[in-house]
Parts: sequence; C-alpha cells; structure tokens
Amino acid sequence: MSAEPSVSPSRVGVWLIGARGSVATTAVAGCAAVTAGLHPPTGMVTETGAFHEAGLPALPSLVFGGHDVVDCPLPKRAESLAAGGVLPHDLPSAVAAELASADREIRIGGPLPGDTRTEDELIEALAQDIRDFAHRGGLARTVVVNVSSTEPVPEGDTLPASSLYAAAALRAGCPYVNFTPSAGLHHPRLAPAAAASGLPYAGRDGKTGQTLLRSVLGPMFAQRALAVRAWSGTNLLGGGDGAALADPAAAAAKNAGKERVLADTLGTVPEGETHIDDVPSLGDWKTAWDHIAFDGFLGTRMVLQTTWQGCDSSLAAPLILDLARLTARAHELGVSGPLAELGFYFKDPVGEGPAPLGEQYAHLIGFADRLRELARPPGPEEPREVRDAAERMAGEHR
Amino acid sequence: MSAEPSVSPSRVGVWLIGARGSVATTAVAGCAAVTAGLHPPTGMVTETGAFHEAGLPALPSLVFGGHDVVDCPLPKRAESLAAGGVLPHDLPSAVAAELASADREIRIGGPLPGDTRTEDELIEALAQDIRDFAHRGGLARTVVVNVSSTEPVPEGDTLPASSLYAAAALRAGCPYVNFTPSAGLHHPRLAPAAAASGLPYAGRDGKTGQTLLRSVLGPMFAQRALAVRAWSGTNLLGGGDGAALADPAAAAAKNAGKERVLADTLGTVPEGETHIDDVPSLGDWKTAWDHIAFDGFLGTRMVLQTTWQGCDSSLAAPLILDLARLTARAHELGVSGPLAELGFYFKDPVGEGPAPLGEQYAHLIGFADRLRELARPPGPEEPREVRDAAERMAGEHR
Amino acid sequence: MSAEPSVSPSRVGVWLIGARGSVATTAVAGCAAVTAGLHPPTGMVTETGAFHEAGLPALPSLVFGGHDVVDCPLPKRAESLAAGGVLPHDLPSAVAAELASADREIRIGGPLPGDTRTEDELIEALAQDIRDFAHRGGLARTVVVNVSSTEPVPEGDTLPASSLYAAAALRAGCPYVNFTPSAGLHHPRLAPAAAASGLPYAGRDGKTGQTLLRSVLGPMFAQRALAVRAWSGTNLLGGGDGAALADPAAAAAKNAGKERVLADTLGTVPEGETHIDDVPSLGDWKTAWDHIAFDGFLGTRMVLQTTWQGCDSSLAAPLILDLARLTARAHELGVSGPLAELGFYFKDPVGEGPAPLGEQYAHLIGFADRLRELARPPGPEEPREVRDAAERMAGEHR
Amino acid sequence: MSAEPSVSPSRVGVWLIGARGSVATTAVAGCAAVTAGLHPPTGMVTETGAFHEAGLPALPSLVFGGHDVVDCPLPKRAESLAAGGVLPHDLPSAVAAELASADREIRIGGPLPGDTRTEDELIEALAQDIRDFAHRGGLARTVVVNVSSTEPVPEGDTLPASSLYAAAALRAGCPYVNFTPSAGLHHPRLAPAAAASGLPYAGRDGKTGQTLLRSVLGPMFAQRALAVRAWSGTNLLGGGDGAALADPAAAAAKNAGKERVLADTLGTVPEGETHIDDVPSLGDWKTAWDHIAFDGFLGTRMVLQTTWQGCDSSLAAPLILDLARLTARAHELGVSGPLAELGFYFKDPVGEGPAPLGEQYAHLIGFADRLRELARPPGPEEPREVRDAAERMAGEHR
Repeated sequence: MSAEPSVSPSRVGVWLIGARGSVATTAVAGCAAVTAGLHPPTGMVTETGAFHEAGLPALPSLVFGGHDVVDCPLPKRAESLAAGGVLPHDLPSAVAAELASADREIRIGGPLPGDTRTEDELIEALAQDIRDFAHRGGLARTVVVNVSSTEPVPEGDTLPASSLYAAAALRAGCPYVNFTPSAGLHHPRLAPAAAASGLPYAGRDGKTGQTLLRSVLGPMFAQRALAVRAWSGTNLLGGGDGAALADPAAAAAKNAGKERVLADTLGTVPEGETHIDDVPSLGDWKTAWDHIAFDGFLGTRMVLQTTWQGCDSSLAAPLILDLARLTARAHELGVSGPLAELGFYFKDPVGEGPAPLGEQYAHLIGFADRLRELARPPGPEEPREVRDAAERMAGEHR
Repeated sequence: MSAEPSVSPSRVGVWLIGARGSVATTAVAGCAAVTAGLHPPTGMVTETGAFHEAGLPALPSLVFGGHDVVDCPLPKRAESLAAGGVLPHDLPSAVAAELASADREIRIGGPLPGDTRTEDELIEALAQDIRDFAHRGGLARTVVVNVSSTEPVPEGDTLPASSLYAAAALRAGCPYVNFTPSAGLHHPRLAPAAAASGLPYAGRDGKTGQTLLRSVLGPMFAQRALAVRAWSGTNLLGGGDGAALADPAAAAAKNAGKERVLADTLGTVPEGETHIDDVPSLGDWKTAWDHIAFDGFLGTRMVLQTTWQGCDSSLAAPLILDLARLTARAHELGVSGPLAELGFYFKDPVGEGPAPLGEQYAHLIGFADRLRELARPPGPEEPREVRDAAERMAGEHR
Repeated sequence: MSAEPSVSPSRVGVWLIGARGSVATTAVAGCAAVTAGLHPPTGMVTETGAFHEAGLPALPSLVFGGHDVVDCPLPKRAESLAAGGVLPHDLPSAVAAELASADREIRIGGPLPGDTRTEDELIEALAQDIRDFAHRGGLARTVVVNVSSTEPVPEGDTLPASSLYAAAALRAGCPYVNFTPSAGLHHPRLAPAAAASGLPYAGRDGKTGQTLLRSVLGPMFAQRALAVRAWSGTNLLGGGDGAALADPAAAAAKNAGKERVLADTLGTVPEGETHIDDVPSLGDWKTAWDHIAFDGFLGTRMVLQTTWQGCDSSLAAPLILDLARLTARAHELGVSGPLAELGFYFKDPVGEGPAPLGEQYAHLIGFADRLRELARPPGPEEPREVRDAAERMAGEHR
Repeated sequence: MSAEPSVSPSRVGVWLIGARGSVATTAVAGCAAVTAGLHPPTGMVTETGAFHEAGLPALPSLVFGGHDVVDCPLPKRAESLAAGGVLPHDLPSAVAAELASADREIRIGGPLPGDTRTEDELIEALAQDIRDFAHRGGLARTVVVNVSSTEPVPEGDTLPASSLYAAAALRAGCPYVNFTPSAGLHHPRLAPAAAASGLPYAGRDGKTGQTLLRSVLGPMFAQRALAVRAWSGTNLLGGGDGAALADPAAAAAKNAGKERVLADTLGTVPEGETHIDDVPSLGDWKTAWDHIAFDGFLGTRMVLQTTWQGCDSSLAAPLILDLARLTARAHELGVSGPLAELGFYFKDPVGEGPAPLGEQYAHLIGFADRLRELARPPGPEEPREVRDAAERMAGEHR
C-alpha cells in the first residue's frame, strides 16, 4: 500500500531521447557537478545575469530520465567520456549517485528490430514511459529533449523513430525540444496534433560549432557589403556522431541546416561544399575547417579561414540544460506553440526570426523579459497590458 | 580678374591626410570606377538599400584633394598598386583623368624636417590649403579624413602632426574623420576647440580585418557564456603600414584599439599578445592569425583559429567613401559633435556605443533613419517632434 | 620543290597533350620568358647547379606543339591566365610571338564525338601529327608530355584517350611523360609495346602541392617514430581541373596517388578521407588543407594542420620543362624504359624507388651524375667502366 | 661497515639537469611505463628496427637522478602533468615506485641565491653529486643530460649555470647532452677541457616541433627551387618554458636555433620574425603557427601555413631516452668528441653535418651501423678495418 507521490512544484523532469549518448551523459553529469559547486556553469546562458528572476527551474530541481536503445549504464558511459577527455577525470566518481539515479529512469525505446507493434502502440508505450517517470518523480512537468543520433532524411509517409518519440511527448502532454536535425515534431503528419496540443516546442538542430561561427561570420560579410563567392567546409569527427553522419542521407540532413544559416545570413547561396568525415580516432572531438573566399572593393580577392576544435558534447550539454529550463518555464506560464525566440540555439529554428546570432541573442533576452512579465501578478491598474502581452506572445508563436 | 567660382550644393570635398597613400589612392580610383560603372560598390555599406534616400552625397559629386609629404603622383601610385594586385590591372588607365585631377589638388603637408613655423602658423597654412581647395572647387562642404600612417603614441604636450591637421580641419570649418589610431582630434589640447566648433567628427582607427573579426567573435563567446582564456594574434603586413607599425610605439597605438575591442566585447581582458610584423614582400596584403583558447562546459578546453588574408587598402577605401558621405550629410543637417553611431567603422569609437558589430550595425542603420528624419520638412502638425529628434540626437553626441 | 628541313641537333620538340590548357600555356610562355631573361627560372630544378654540364637541351632549343580538342588560341588563353593572376600581366604580350608560334603547331586530337575511326587509325593519325611536327621543325627528337585533364579510371579493355596518345608517342618513336593520373602508357595493353620500344618514359601524376607536402611530412612522422592516426584533407580548386575532378571517377584516380604517398612513407594507411571540391571562383588557384592527428609518447594526442595556397599551373609548368629536358637527354644517350630516378616529380612513379622526397631528390641528382657519366667519351683506360655504367643503368630500368 | 656496491655493466645512469621539470618527469615516468609494457615506445627512434642489435642499454637498465633547484617531489609533479593531460591519468600511480626512486636521487643544484662558493667549488660539489649517484647505483657509466629551462644568452666571461653543470659532467668523467639552447658545454671557456676529456657529447637545443617541421619544409622548397620570400612564426606556450622564454634574452637564444635551421636548409635568410609568447593557460601544450610566403614560376606568389599543436614534454621525453642510450653506448665503445651524427635531434648540432632532416636521419642510421661495427670483435683477418673505422669515426668528431 504505497503512498501516492505528491507532485512537487519544484521538480521538473528532463526526458532525454538518446539518454545514454555523450550529450545526455554530459548534461546529467554536468548538472550535478554545477549543482555541487564543482564547476562554474560555463556555456549555460541561462546562468548569466540576463536570466535573473526569470523564474527558471533551478538546476537542483531537474530530474533526468529518458529513452535509449543501447544498454551501457550511465556511470560507465561517463567513465569512457572521462577517458576521452570530454569529462574531467574525477567527475564520474564525484557524481556517481546522480548518474545512477538517472540511469534507473532510462527505458528501452523503439521501434526495436523485429518490433511488430503498430505506430500507435509504439507511441502509447513510449508515452506511458514518460507518464510513469513523471508520476514516480512527482514532477510538476517534464520536457522531452531529443539528443539522439541524426536520422537519415525520411522518405515516404512512415513516421521515423524521432517522430514517434515526438508524438509520444505530445500524447504525454510534454513540451518538446529537438536538438538534432532529425524530423521529430517537424513531420507533416504531426503538425495538426502539435497545433492542437497547446504545448510549447523548440528546435531544431543545435548550433554548437561550425554553424555557430557561420551565424556570426555570415552577418559580418553581409553588413560590410563584402561579396562572399565560395564558402567551403570540412568537419572531422569520430564518436557515434561521426559514424551516423558517415551515412550520406544523415549528412544531408545535417548539411541542410548549415547551408540554411549561410543562405539566411548572406542572402545568397555561395559556391562550395561542406563535408562531414567520420574519423573514429578523434572520438568526441570535432575539427571544423571553413574556407571563405570573398571579394572586396574593386573585386580584390580575399580569404578567411577558420579552424574550430571543440568537443561537441561539452558544447551541447549546457544548451540542453538551458533549453529544458526555458521550455519548462514557458510551459508553466502557458506559452504554447513554436518558441521562435529560442532560434539562438538552432540551425533551423521553428517559427519566424532573424538568422544573425546577435539578433537571435537579443530575442532570447527579450524572451527572458517576457517570462518575467508573464509571471507578474496583474495589479488592478494593469490587467489589460499583461493579458495583451500574453496574447501577443502566443500569437507570435502561431 | 577671375570670376568667383559658384558654390555647388552637389559638390562635396574629401580632403585626405595621406593623400598619396594606398588607401587614399584606392578610394579616389575606386570612386571613379564605381561612378563609371566599371565595378560594383562592393564593400560600401552606404550603397546598400538601408541608405536609400538618406540624402548622402552621390559618388560623382565627391571631389578629392589632400595633404601628403611624399611626391609620387597619384597615377603612378595607382600603377604600382595595380602591379601589386591591389587595383585591377586596367583601372589606372581607365580612371587616369580622375587620378590626375585629384593629384592637382594635393598639397605638401607638414611639419617638414627643419620647419621653423610655429604650431599656429602650421595649422593656419594647412587650413588655408583646405579653404583654397573648397573655394577652387565651389564645394558645399569638405570632410577632412586622416588616412596617413600610424604615428607613435604622443608624449608630452606638443601636438603631433595628426593633431595639427585635425586643428586645421576645425579652423577651416570642416567635419573630421580619423581612420587611423593616431591622436588627431583626440588630443586633449584640441578638446575645447572641437566642442566649440559645432562640427561633427568621427573616429578612430578603422576596423578592417583582424579587429573586424574580433568584433563578431568576441560577442559570440560572451553570448554563449564560453570562457575565453587566451586570445593571441599575429599580423603580417608589408607596405608603408608594415614599416610604420614596426615602430613599437606605433604598434602600441594600434594594439590598444585591438585589445579594447576584446575587452569591451568579452568583459574581461584575456591572456595573449598581438604582434604586428613588417614583412615587406607581402606588400599591401595582410595576413592575420588569431588563436583563441576557450573553456566549454566543465572546463573542457577548446580552440578557435582564424586566418584572415586581405588587402587593407581594398578593405579601407570603401569605408572612407562611406564615412565621407555620412559625415558630410550629418554636417549638412546640422548634426554636431562625436558621431557615436559610426562606431561600426572603428576600433575605438568616439562617444558611447556598443562594441559588438551587430549592434553597431543596428546603430548605423538607425543613423540613416535619423538622417532621413532630420531632412523631412516639418509639417504643421509635427514641428515639435522633429525638433526634439534633432535635439535628442545632438544631445547624445555630447 | 621545297627544301627538306635539316635536322638540328640543338632543337628538341615538346609535344603537349592538352596543349591549350593552363599548364601547357604556362610552360610555353614561361620558357619564352625565362629565355628572354624576363624572369628567373624559379621552380625549375634543372636550372640549379646540380644539373650543370648534364647536357640537357637549353631552354631556347625547345620547340612546342601538341594536341588538344578545344580551339582557344594560346595567346588568348595566356591573356585569360594573366587576368586570373596565373601569369604576370604583361607576359602575354611580351611573348606573343612564341605563343603564336606554338599555337600554329597544335593539332586537333581525338577521338572526337562521332569519331568512327578505329583505334589503330586514331593512333596512326595522332602519330603522324607528331612526325609532321618533328619534320617541319627539323627536330632532333620530340618528347610527348601528357598535361591534359584527368580521365576517369578506365573500365574494360578499350584504350582511353590518354592511352591512345601514349601509343601514338611510341609509334612515332618519342619518349613519353605522363604528368597526370590518367592511364597513358600505364595501360596493360600498352605494356608490351612500351617494353619493346627501347624508349625512355616517366610518370605519373605530378606532385605539385598537397602531395608534395605529404612526401616530406610522411617521412618526418615515420623517422621520428610518431604514430599517425588520421590524415584528412580537402582540396578546393576551380579551373578546368576542378570541374574534371568533380567527377568522382576522376577524383578517385587522383586520390589513389595521394594515398599511395602516405602509405609508402608511413608504412600504414591512416584513417581519413581526401576531398576534391570544384570551386569555380578560385580559378587556377588551389587551396589544400590537411589535418594530421598523431600520437606522441605515452599516447599523447597531437595535431598538425597545413594549408597550401598555390597556383597549380605555376607549380607544374617548370616541372614540365624539367621533365622534357631530362627525358630528351636520356633518350639522346640511349637510356630506355621507366625512368625511376624521376620519382621526385611524381605521386605514383614508374619503376622502383623511394617515397620520401629527400631520397627522391638524391636519386634525381644521381640521375644528373649518370647523364654526365654516360656522355663522357670513353678514354682508352676506361671503356669498361662507362659501358658497365650504361648497362647497369639500363638494367635498373627494367 | 657497508659493502661497496658492485658496478653492474647493465646499469646506466641518466643524470638530468632540471630533474623535476616536465621533460624529465615525463622521461622517467615514460621509461618505466614502456618497460612495464603499459605503452608502446611511440616517439623513441632507438626502439625502431634500425637500432636492432646496436648494443644500446635496455630501457630497464636506465637509472635516473639529477639536479634541480625546486623541491616539488617527482610523484607530485607527475600528478600535475597528468591533470594537464601530458601524462595519462593513471600513469603516476602505475609508476609511483620508479618516480619515488628517481626522486631520492635528485640533489639541489646551484648556484643558489646568496651562494658564496667559487666557480670551482660549485663545479666540484655538482660533480661529487654525480659521482655519488654512480657509486650508490653501481652504474657502469652516467650520461648527464641538460633539460632545464632556457637561460638568457650569457654575457661576459662568467660561466652560466648550464656551463657549471657541463663542467661538472666533464669533471665526473660523464658524457654530456645539451637538449636546451643554453650554453652548457658550448661555452668557450670549456672548450679545452671538453677536447681533453675524451668524452663524447651531443647537443644542442632539441628539435621537437616548429623547427622539426622547418627541417623538412626548408629542404622541400630548396629542392624544388621555389623562392622563399618570408618565413614568419608565432609560438604560444605556457608552463615553465613559456615563462622562461618570455625573457627576450632567452627567446633570442631559442630563436637563433630556429633561424639557423632555415638558413642552413634554404641557403638564404628569408624575411620574417619568430615570436615566442607566454600563454600560461596553455600549460605544457604548444601551438606553433608558421606562414611561408614563396614565389613559384614567373614570380607567382603562394603561401604555405602550418599549425602544430603538440605537447613539448611528450615530444622531448622519448628523444631524451634515445640520446641517453646512444651517448652511453658511444662512450662504452670509446667514441669521443662531438657526436655530429646526432644532428637529427638538434636545432644547432655540434660538429659538421647536413641540415635537412632526411639526411640527418640517414646519418643517425649510419651511426647505428658504426656502433655495431665498433662492437664487433676484430677477427684475425680484419683488425685493420675495424681499427680504421674507429679512427675514422673519432677523426670525424674532431
């Protein structure tokens, strides 16, 4: 005769699709490390002053779980990330309890090979996993975040796995964030349900390295009226991501986002290709080389080259925490639909918004302001304005 | 008994300090080339749609002259720039008439070695050269633009050459733009005269390559809450600029601006040095390498490197034309004092303004809006607002 | 009744397959320019002291002609190369006579679209063009050099165009050099004729940029016992070469040579891919980026990156002149078979030889010594040794 | 009444000047790790096949000790290197016994601040430390290796610290290797003693990164007859080395070696500077950027850039083990004087030898051959040749 867990307003679930991957493991371990004061919150925009008093859930209130199709336990995954230099060497043992706790909340996803369940049965099973997680944890709400490997661009009408998970999030009544280029909630068959759900959602395809750079360099060339003739790039990466993107169809999905950023910021599509090479010995480290040939005054030919050497998991994980907090708070305040103000985080943002990173940052700060405004109790003299603000905001999301 | 030249509202003088240098020669030749339709106005921000109907002087209305202490004729200088690939090979002959015309309006500057004139006598002589130019050309106004070689940081109270020219601009009643890191109008002894003059002025130190990049990369790191640990750089350049900057005192002047951009955009001063090497065989071409070591989540160490290979004259010249047009129009409309809205162009801008390039661009676009607003004839229903706008603008300049 | 042209021992023909291409045009123009004293022989190894008195034909004695399937006249091609910065601007007019002269000796190659001639008829027609050239010019000998665009790797038994030209060279009794990765004389069906011909030949695939670098960097890692884990590269190039290599089959031919150099110098085949991108706006300029991940002591991970920005035609042309001279002299002295000592110039050299550039250079210098030795008239006391040397040399070529 | 330790022919001392530094610690830990089979001997040239049966002392036979002026225990130093990624994380504990053992054999060097001992007293005290070490360990011989921080170029006649240690090595009858650019045995006042000692010695200034690269790239340009116009470089490094080299006098010592390599391989001294920046946050990791502007055929301007990211200690340590073994074996076989054949390891090698790395490697392999030849017991039929070889070798060393 167990007591029903009480729902705590201070506990927020983060349900990770791909919960045993590098990004998820780094997010879980990092949240615990920052909470414990072992590391500063480097890379977390929501921990900067601009988000002060925006009512975001505190890091200690985040509870992690998720789906995955592999079974390597999180503590072991963390050890291997530490061996590869992605996590500090002593971190896995320091946050062993939190990793084990999250590990207990990971369920096998699907569809698995030989799975005979119908689409609807699968979605229901996945949704039930999420509901159970929320129930067990007494969670006020749960944000579903896709951080699994990039899928090939789907062909035909069948929902790809990422869209099954997104449908499950909707069914479980959860806000949804797609950090990958996979279809997810973006599938045309899910559009009606997404619109009807009244849930906030964000995505897609996190902007962590080469495209982050492009989102500031593209505007620079445009603002200075310099003519970009060719923008070529090569990405070298190992780990699971390198292997997944060695599939040309998956790479095509990823590259579409990269090129969109250039087209949107430059106003034209320059010559040049972008390669993604699987180099297993680089592990989770990524090197991205960009070569930009541009014309100056009187046609003088010039070149900018950039080389970015980063660890994708370390770049993505703090953004995952940011997005979970922002989306949870938006949900709490009744914001629904595509969160265009979160375009700062994505290559291919939902809704309408600017492409230059600086403008996207301004919109993000504006989103913090609105969260604060929405949370203010309407006084006798200002009920209209606040209601208007809430309506305007919701309107922009449609 | 010569007839007095009539003042044409459509003719605007551009008086270049360092009129026989690479930047000046490229500006004069390029203005003629674009006017003649030989080249598109690549690199000229004022030729983009945002400046439509801002009332800027048309390119064909610009008349060039200036001071220099060397005597290589402009057509010959242009030939040598073409040989070095800075100008298209056939341009010097195509715009020979315009180069010769500008060459006739160049006067010997000063002080020359052995010059025994007092400061005041020098300033007066320089000012008279400018007045004569305006008179001969029947110019509505003349903008003085400093594009001469970088001076060492001045010591003591004596006005350096750049400040003598700036004082001459004030005395001749001309708006002033300092595209170099030299003192110019920035000298404390000139502050009272600048304030009293009612003239608009802008500067200093054009942002054309490495610092342009830094002004977009610095904000990127700051907005993403990534911790920059060290920012190191090396510039290789030949030409006169390389030789001038081989003087450590001149390099110090230049580097102060570069570091200011980092400090302003990052909020801290990272480790790292910036070198400027004179490499004569590179001629007017500059290579700038930057190495940025930064920390991601949980202290993971990452690196961004950039290599910029550009031709400084080609990058600077269109900005000179932009600045002359913007400053001339501001003067025409009665705007006075430091033009903080032109911070987009400078490493160390006058007045108060943001450091990230994107925000500076927004201010520049705002400046275009204000120029349009100031020019609108006040109708019966709106005199107050326009006057207010003009006052507010002037006020911000103080 | 025209007089028979007399054969001049001092005139040597250079018959270029791809005679209207960038490399051929640069070789013809450059030979004239160096002969006229307009430029130093930069990039020509045969003009260094080590080749003193090796009896190579003098540059003014070289007479150019060749086959091509396009009809742009050489003087016009040279103009367009000058416009792209590949040739000095004033060179086309300075060597106009020599360009026109070579242009008159260019014949349409084949097979052309719709060509119904048999293989043998084609070879005979091509060979006759070469014989006519030699006859008209009174040439002592003619070296055939393939500098045409890279062909796809041939499939099946049909001779590709490059092999038809090679067969024509054999039939006309001419030494042959293959500067491209195409099959040329390397086709199995030509092996018997090549062996029976008694002619010297060299190739294949000139080593001008990225692979040149690899041939010194590979040995460095091997000699220092550093473990290369991954060697990745990207080439950006425009011009005809970029377009030809955008064909995956042609790129495969090219990349095989690049990888061979790594395998031969490192002793293993590291991870990593090599891309060749067609970037038309780069014209004849090529940028090659290499990223080499290697392990040091105790497994410490390190990286070397190189960026090579060069003009392929300028790099290749002096090597073409070198090869024509060396091969002509070898032919004159009766050397036959594969010239393994010329491995210095090639990615995939004929015969047996070392892969590190330094050792290849030593072999090349040794070749110069042998040419001198072979040329020395046997005195009464040394007939044996010289004969022995000649025999040994010929033996090594088999 | 302690028993006299017996001298074991299989135990060879390695006495490190700077025994608590990064390089020394990595050498000691690495020797133990390779001995224990924990890591392959990556970076140790003496473990490659070419040194098979050259009679070098086996790694387990090396016994470490040395001088230093700091007192951080080796096990602790190893921990901090592991934290910085220079050593594998688990290595310090795996080889704790060997580190502790070496630590017990480290003595305070000198001169210390306020030291009033005369030069001769200091040398004697240092020599006595070395003799005591050899005696305690029952060592057949001891090689003294300088791996301490770079000293400023000495001025005047006083022996700098590095030369005091070198003099102590001579006095203790020990072969000497100078891996740094400091004066060491190179001081003019030590020349007579070095010549009279009959001891072999090697140096100076290990070639581990940027200069290693230059020693293969310089020859490439020279062999291809390409004209290098400017060679510029910047080194960023932290750790003790960065701080020491921030002293312009120390940097000058280091740069002299770097420039010597260029001058020796190119035959000219190109334009360009080399900077060494102290960037503490990079720790033991070094980044070296080189920019090489060169001319191709007809003066076409091209550029090669290289970026080397390595860990100096990991690059240097295996070379220290190589040098100790080679020098010990040379001493055992009676070779004396400067070991020019070890130029492969140094920027500024003793004796006469080639500058290109490939040729230096061939000389090193030749040295292995000579060691084998010297060790062969003269049979009745070959005493002359062996004696001759030994004499020839010794002669070349003079």
